[in-house]
Amino acid sequence: MLVAQIPLNHTLESTLDLTAVFAFATSGALLAVHKRFDVVGLVVLAEATAIGGGVIRDLVIGAAPPAAFTHPEYVLVPLGAAGAVFFAHARVERLLALVLLFDAAGLALYAVSGTAKASASGLGPVPAVALGVVTAVGGGVLRDVLAQETPVVLRSDSVLYAIPAFLAAVLVASAREAGVYGTAAATAAVALAFVLRVLALLRGWRAPRPRV
Amino acid sequence: MLVAQIPLNHTLESTLDLTAVFAFATSGALLAVHKRFDVVGLVVLAEATAIGGGVIRDLVIGAAPPAAFTHPEYVLVPLGAAGAVFFAHARVERLLALVLLFDAAGLALYAVSGTAKASASGLGPVPAVALGVVTAVGGGVLRDVLAQETPVVLRSDSVLYAIPAFLAAVLVASAREAGVYGTAAATAAVALAFVLRVLALLRGWRAPRPRV
Amino acid sequence: MLVAQIPLNHTLESTLDLTAVFAFATSGALLAVHKRFDVVGLVVLAEATAIGGGVIRDLVIGAAPPAAFTHPEYVLVPLGAAGAVFFAHARVERLLALVLLFDAAGLALYAVSGTAKASASGLGPVPAVALGVVTAVGGGVLRDVLAQETPVVLRSDSVLYAIPAFLAAVLVASAREAGVYGTAAATAAVALAFVLRVLALLRGWRAPRPRV
Repeated sequence: MLVAQIPLNHTLESTLDLTAVFAFATSGALLAVHKRFDVVGLVVLAEATAIGGGVIRDLVIGAAPPAAFTHPEYVLVPLGAAGAVFFAHARVERLLALVLLFDAAGLALYAVSGTAKASASGLGPVPAVALGVVTAVGGGVLRDVLAQETPVVLRSDSVLYAIPAFLAAVLVASAREAGVYGTAAATAAVALAFVLRVLALLRGWRAPRPRV
Repeated sequence: MLVAQIPLNHTLESTLDLTAVFAFATSGALLAVHKRFDVVGLVVLAEATAIGGGVIRDLVIGAAPPAAFTHPEYVLVPLGAAGAVFFAHARVERLLALVLLFDAAGLALYAVSGTAKASASGLGPVPAVALGVVTAVGGGVLRDVLAQETPVVLRSDSVLYAIPAFLAAVLVASAREAGVYGTAAATAAVALAFVLRVLALLRGWRAPRPRV
Repeated sequence: MLVAQIPLNHTLESTLDLTAVFAFATSGALLAVHKRFDVVGLVVLAEATAIGGGVIRDLVIGAAPPAAFTHPEYVLVPLGAAGAVFFAHARVERLLALVLLFDAAGLALYAVSGTAKASASGLGPVPAVALGVVTAVGGGVLRDVLAQETPVVLRSDSVLYAIPAFLAAVLVASAREAGVYGTAAATAAVALAFVLRVLALLRGWRAPRPRV
């Protein structure tokens, strides 16, 4: 869902992008297995998780049809992930660390590409940051709402997820405002969100909650 | 919500279309009664179920305002269904087989018209099929999410619903790709989804679920 | 989110509008505290409640990007409300009557401005009324769905909320049809919804529910 908004090497970008789509879709399909849904549930949660955030972003900036509906690979890759989980979910679970790693990469890429695309469409820095975060976490929220689970991103017992995306989005929007957005800034923002998310997973970092 | 995407007799098409809107709305209003919602709950669930799928489709293909907001009958017919259920839900429940039959017709019609409209707007066959299924099942998913129920279409204890819609959508998209989409193909696709759904109801056919 | 659709004094209008945004956001953040969400949960529910209804309305009428994404104050004011609730939710709870009062003002303003904006975009009176109600109650529904609570507006144990908005929307649409929509009609409609909602709160008025 990057659509050339991150000025990296193009082949690398496409590979990372579809890997992220696959990781997001896998998290959707695995939740469907845990909820004991049928094959339709697996496919719907895989698709919603993988393309939900990008579709919302594109509808908000008026880019209809969304990128996910003009590039069939964005519909087909989640279908592949759902198939893999359907036939081999036990094996996929054993690779959960890998799925979480790719999911972290997806989170970082989507936050950066979402903010950059929103900004390029003419939005100011504040709404662009908001939409960057929505791009990164929207699919996961949709996955949880469809499965009737409290969205992981809202819960105080889950480790940092939206905040790394938010910081990367702020970095991108600031770099654009300063007129220095380019390969270096995009790479730094992706790395920032990715490293923070992985550290949060390793060390159990949580966001503050109000004292009750 | 067909908007002349199914090349059938026009009066027949309009009648079928509004009958489907009424059946979808009735299923929403009946769920509201079971959840012990008030009259607002009945109206909101009736409207969301009846027009939700078509509204999502139209927003995705960039056809704003959606057909449901330019033809007042799409707002008024669900209001009528909510009224009928409000005053006579016990009698409506006794006609549940009839409601399910019209709902099956709605499912089939929406899958075909949704795929055809998405395709006519320029989407490729893969996204058109995805959007056809969303048109057919989106209203029901919205109904269940609003009522805080696990969406019927995802659950492994419910009989086939999305899969008949998917097969009809594939038939429409294939016929369009082959340049033979017309009255015969549309009728065949509607019949396919309708018959499959009714057989699934009669025989309790379920979609496969992953072995746990 | 009024965007000059209510022909009142402009400074008054802006003040009322942002006060309503703040009240809506506060109700979202307070729910997040009750659900024991973290700071991300507070911000997400504050934003969703405050801008959700207006964003849906703008997407439906094809006004992308929505007003909430072109005026940074619509993103920043909910952030302020989330901050206030994060640091002082006990004190905010003690002001709950005040929050409910501003929320009633927001409900009334959003119903009127939503109907007027939908109508000005070319929608007929029936869809304009539907969209006015969605503008007024949509944010609250989104808040409840994200928090995995049955939407307050659907429940039969909650006092009138959507119906005052509906009546104000009908008044606006009728005045527009009759060609007499102006300051007087807008003020009357806002006052009608506001007074009805406050009376419903004071006297515990509920919407009828179907006899079971």
